[in-house]
Amino acid sequence: MRAVDVIEKKRDGNELSPEEIRWFVHGYVAGKIPDYQMAAFLMAVYFRGMSEEETVALTQAMVESGERIDLSSVPGIKVDKHSTGGVGDTVTLVLVPLMAASGLVMAKLSGRALGHTGGTIDKFESIPGVRTELSLSEIVEQAKRVGAVIADHTAELVPADRMIYELRDVTGTVPSLPLIAASVLSKKIAGGADVIVLDVKCGDGAFMRTFPEAKRLAETLVRVGNKLGKKFAALITAMDQPLGRMAGNALEVKQAIAVLRGEGPADLREVVLALGAELLVLSGEEKTPEGGKERLLRLIESGKAWEKFRELVAAQGGDLRAVENPDLLPQAEEVVEVQAEKSGYVQRISARAVGVAAGLLGAGREVKGQKVHPEAGVELLAKVGDPVSQGDPLARLHVGRPDRVREAEKLLREAFLIGPEKPRPQPLILDRIV
Amino acid sequence: MRAVDVIEKKRDGNELSPEEIRWFVHGYVAGKIPDYQMAAFLMAVYFRGMSEEETVALTQAMVESGERIDLSSVPGIKVDKHSTGGVGDTVTLVLVPLMAASGLVMAKLSGRALGHTGGTIDKFESIPGVRTELSLSEIVEQAKRVGAVIADHTAELVPADRMIYELRDVTGTVPSLPLIAASVLSKKIAGGADVIVLDVKCGDGAFMRTFPEAKRLAETLVRVGNKLGKKFAALITAMDQPLGRMAGNALEVKQAIAVLRGEGPADLREVVLALGAELLVLSGEEKTPEGGKERLLRLIESGKAWEKFRELVAAQGGDLRAVENPDLLPQAEEVVEVQAEKSGYVQRISARAVGVAAGLLGAGREVKGQKVHPEAGVELLAKVGDPVSQGDPLARLHVGRPDRVREAEKLLREAFLIGPEKPRPQPLILDRIV
Repeated sequence: MRAVDVIEKKRDGNELSPEEIRWFVHGYVAGKIPDYQMAAFLMAVYFRGMSEEETVALTQAMVESGERIDLSSVPGIKVDKHSTGGVGDTVTLVLVPLMAASGLVMAKLSGRALGHTGGTIDKFESIPGVRTELSLSEIVEQAKRVGAVIADHTAELVPADRMIYELRDVTGTVPSLPLIAASVLSKKIAGGADVIVLDVKCGDGAFMRTFPEAKRLAETLVRVGNKLGKKFAALITAMDQPLGRMAGNALEVKQAIAVLRGEGPADLREVVLALGAELLVLSGEEKTPEGGKERLLRLIESGKAWEKFRELVAAQGGDLRAVENPDLLPQAEEVVEVQAEKSGYVQRISARAVGVAAGLLGAGREVKGQKVHPEAGVELLAKVGDPVSQGDPLARLHVGRPDRVREAEKLLREAFLIGPEKPRPQPLILDRIV
Repeated sequence: MRAVDVIEKKRDGNELSPEEIRWFVHGYVAGKIPDYQMAAFLMAVYFRGMSEEETVALTQAMVESGERIDLSSVPGIKVDKHSTGGVGDTVTLVLVPLMAASGLVMAKLSGRALGHTGGTIDKFESIPGVRTELSLSEIVEQAKRVGAVIADHTAELVPADRMIYELRDVTGTVPSLPLIAASVLSKKIAGGADVIVLDVKCGDGAFMRTFPEAKRLAETLVRVGNKLGKKFAALITAMDQPLGRMAGNALEVKQAIAVLRGEGPADLREVVLALGAELLVLSGEEKTPEGGKERLLRLIESGKAWEKFRELVAAQGGDLRAVENPDLLPQAEEVVEVQAEKSGYVQRISARAVGVAAGLLGAGREVKGQKVHPEAGVELLAKVGDPVSQGDPLARLHVGRPDRVREAEKLLREAFLIGPEKPRPQPLILDRIV
């Protein structure tokens, strides 16, 4: 087999065999197929797409490129969740302990902040003492003991995805449905869960800007995921404003704690409950999503979810005093308010702008390896539909990097669209694909 | 400017500015843009194409990447010719001295054999003593003194073309009209001529298999070439059988000598005269192609073309005894005849198969740098339209590599299609684009 023949076959719109795809991916990871041939292949896939069978084979070949987390020795049903990226997405920090409290096992691998999206690992690490760089055996052991893990992606898992993603990023081949699907699914399959729910974000600040795009991605992910022998479902959730009221690290931990204690923003709680309910239904634990939501609400009200969160934090070395009294979490020394320039109703809040602003304040990183400021971020005081008067505070900027605060302020002011009419409420869960 | 933005702009079907194309090509040649970004760019061009303005800019950027032959100090009109590749294409060996005999200046840069196509440089070098690795100043000096040069492509000319072509070859991006056009035209522009005729081959064994493909390429080449400020014309010539009767190095030199002496195969002579006539018309030396052909025929009949050929050979160090007595050219020790398996008329001769067979016998190379056998090749004893009886000789194999002779024999037997009806004669010159 020659790499150029595989490229030409895809270029000409023919379907590749699983053997050809495996040979190409493994050859690339082994350094036998150079970057330039993979780049040409990826661009041909961008234009020609891939069948579901090809996407299955690509995902499998990528999974085979590295280690897998073997959760088979862990009793119970192992669940996982993936979000296609958004702003103020505190979901994981709430969902992991909540699912563990319900008796399922959730060992979640997450990433760090980059660009305008936050990273669960940075958020979790803002709790003093928390350690996220766990070995594969530590992950399995904690899954058995606690039922809940939040760990940093390890380099041994799906090296093909890391290599291919870095290449896509610089060759204009990121926005390709089968490549996105294989990237997402390979990491989930290698993560070892049996049942996976996907949160496909839709709107400004999300990877998929429009509903039809988001729906196509969600359907592809679920269909291909199911063909890979796991149980998948997806929700399409609106990202036309940030989820919750916080974008930042310690700020989002505080928000997660609030939700786990039965408080916190309603939109964040709704998404958490909807995703968790899908996991319970897919796992056969509940007949309907409604039943799932009720069960999860009871786990919050009874304090069991909160108890599991403390267990999770303690298992990873975190200081329980800081979660029991969130004032002990990192606090910004400087907080700047952004005021409304006119009166009216909030029509939209650009999630992307809020994410970029939080990053500028120190919550994110512009380049890999940069240190994040755990205390930094944006706190929204008004959300879509709220009435505001000129001079009312719209947001608080928690400043980690004082040199970027003017930029962040300007971005945030522009992020709010204020108009005279109260906007019609829009649904948060746009679609459900099972 | 970022390379990924240029790639994405082309990927999305937008027209690139000349500045963007120049920046990308020069950055690639300078090693600032890596192979994988060029590969992704080339595949995007494969799918999206390029406007004529983009192709002009690409060609110019490639020309700027290296040296140019400056023929401005050479008196007279400087002409050149390019063929898109074929089998048994002895044209250059005849056309260069013929044009010089007519008073024009033709300094032709040529390549070596690779794959199933022969290379003029290997052919010319089969004359003992001939040296083709000339410096730029030697080329200019000989153009002044003799009016005729056949030199090896130098590495200093259009390094971007060499680099990009090597990348295209392994990334499935060879068959792209703007990329082919820029490759051909950049070398012609850097070659220093003012007037250029293109021989676009069409049919089996040629790069363009069908007439519409060949016509599109010829039209693109002429239009873009004229926008580059030179005078271009193109002929589309049939390659549904090899041109002439020889495919090999010394064999084709013998055939060229025969044509220059007023003998040789009629089809080869027809193509040479047609291409030469176009050059005379484009140069303003003749009003019509018919007038040009008559003038060229007179130069052959008077012996002036033959005299110029000997002058050319002598100027490049060749042994004149070998061209005056072609039996002194390299001769194969073993010659194998291939016989007709049935009676009838020759319907087709696969030029590609004849080219591959000549290569196997030692006339070509499978990989770069391989030594060629000057004596090896195929001599066709029957051509399309000829009646043959079972057992009649169809071809002689001049063996350079005895280990591959069975393979070559099999290929050659299959190359001949013999049928009961005499085929209708087909034109050799299919179209003329000026």
